[in-house]
Amino acid sequence: MMAGLFITFDGPEGSGKSTQIIRLKEWLEEAGHEVVVTREPGGTDNAETLRDLLVSGDTASWSPVSECLIMNAARADHLERLIRPALAGGKTVLCDRFMDSTRAYQGGGGKLAMDDILAIERSVVGETVPDITFIFDLDPAIGLERAGKRNAHGGEDRFERKGLNYHEAVRTVFRDIATAEPDRCVLIDAAQPIDDVTSTLHKVLQSRGIPG
Amino acid sequence: MMAGLFITFDGPEGSGKSTQIIRLKEWLEEAGHEVVVTREPGGTDNAETLRDLLVSGDTASWSPVSECLIMNAARADHLERLIRPALAGGKTVLCDRFMDSTRAYQGGGGKLAMDDILAIERSVVGETVPDITFIFDLDPAIGLERAGKRNAHGGEDRFERKGLNYHEAVRTVFRDIATAEPDRCVLIDAAQPIDDVTSTLHKVLQSRGIPG
Repeated sequence: MMAGLFITFDGPEGSGKSTQIIRLKEWLEEAGHEVVVTREPGGTDNAETLRDLLVSGDTASWSPVSECLIMNAARADHLERLIRPALAGGKTVLCDRFMDSTRAYQGGGGKLAMDDILAIERSVVGETVPDITFIFDLDPAIGLERAGKRNAHGGEDRFERKGLNYHEAVRTVFRDIATAEPDRCVLIDAAQPIDDVTSTLHKVLQSRGIPG
Repeated sequence: MMAGLFITFDGPEGSGKSTQIIRLKEWLEEAGHEVVVTREPGGTDNAETLRDLLVSGDTASWSPVSECLIMNAARADHLERLIRPALAGGKTVLCDRFMDSTRAYQGGGGKLAMDDILAIERSVVGETVPDITFIFDLDPAIGLERAGKRNAHGGEDRFERKGLNYHEAVRTVFRDIATAEPDRCVLIDAAQPIDDVTSTLHKVLQSRGIPG
């Protein structure tokens, strides 16, 4: 059986990733793909337990280095128990956030040394690099406003509360990744109307022979 | 103010580390040291939360790579919030387990690549390498029997339940560390009577001008 396709969606809160993932799932399923939708941090019981520690509470409750290590511990579990088995079974995996979030949030926002982040990433991700990564690009001021409205009662806003300078640095790293890895990454203008974003995603995938 | 002394105690459960730490604390305090006793995984609120995830439950509940990352996340917090401030304040820190446990348990027992472990260790520990590490050496069969009796009602026995082969591999790495880093590490025969171990520790420290 051919290994399935691994597609990740990265970018700030409020940039519309979740909506597009739901639409893409339906579109791919209509074309015959068996699709697994998952997210980071999270996706398995262990990883969701670690997520709970990270996404709520005081902004300073964990240092960037602890965040990076916990994110990667969750990622290792997620890869071993959900992502790799699904891909090996020929399924298409759509993942809301993946390794690029660690580079952007802990490296960009948190100022952690990128060499250290990439060394850990290599040891955890190994060969399971995404086939395609859509990086949703949006002015942080807009993203934070949208996310703030949505999370009003959620409480999963520890990173959102880190402030605009932090999120400007996150955006810079996301954009740099898209520039540095054009084969894997596609930068998406998330300020477009929702239907236009969907149509852009379809065109990108079709240009690569997907759904095929 | 002169930076304090950082002394770590490593080796298997049941090897008598805790007893010796209590005795050494008293001995050093009598000589005028201000002593902080701590442990890993743990030592701070965040690190104790992560400890709870690791030391109980099914032996396979976390993979060695997740264990290593979570241990280091806890260590980063412990270093930043307890160990480094104490040393900077001139205190002597006695720590029950430290980075050598990660090398031995996740590298030896868990077969994780040592290069990956050491890369993470360097990024987390940095300059805060222990001044002296006592490695308590004991036949795992004896250590596990002692630990089993003690933990009968504790439940913190996830690693103990990983079996004798695992613990033989742990012992090998501990012994190799002591051979490879003789300036930092002293191998202690933990099968000796308790008073003899105490006397050995005193002699080692006195030979280095401690308590001084």
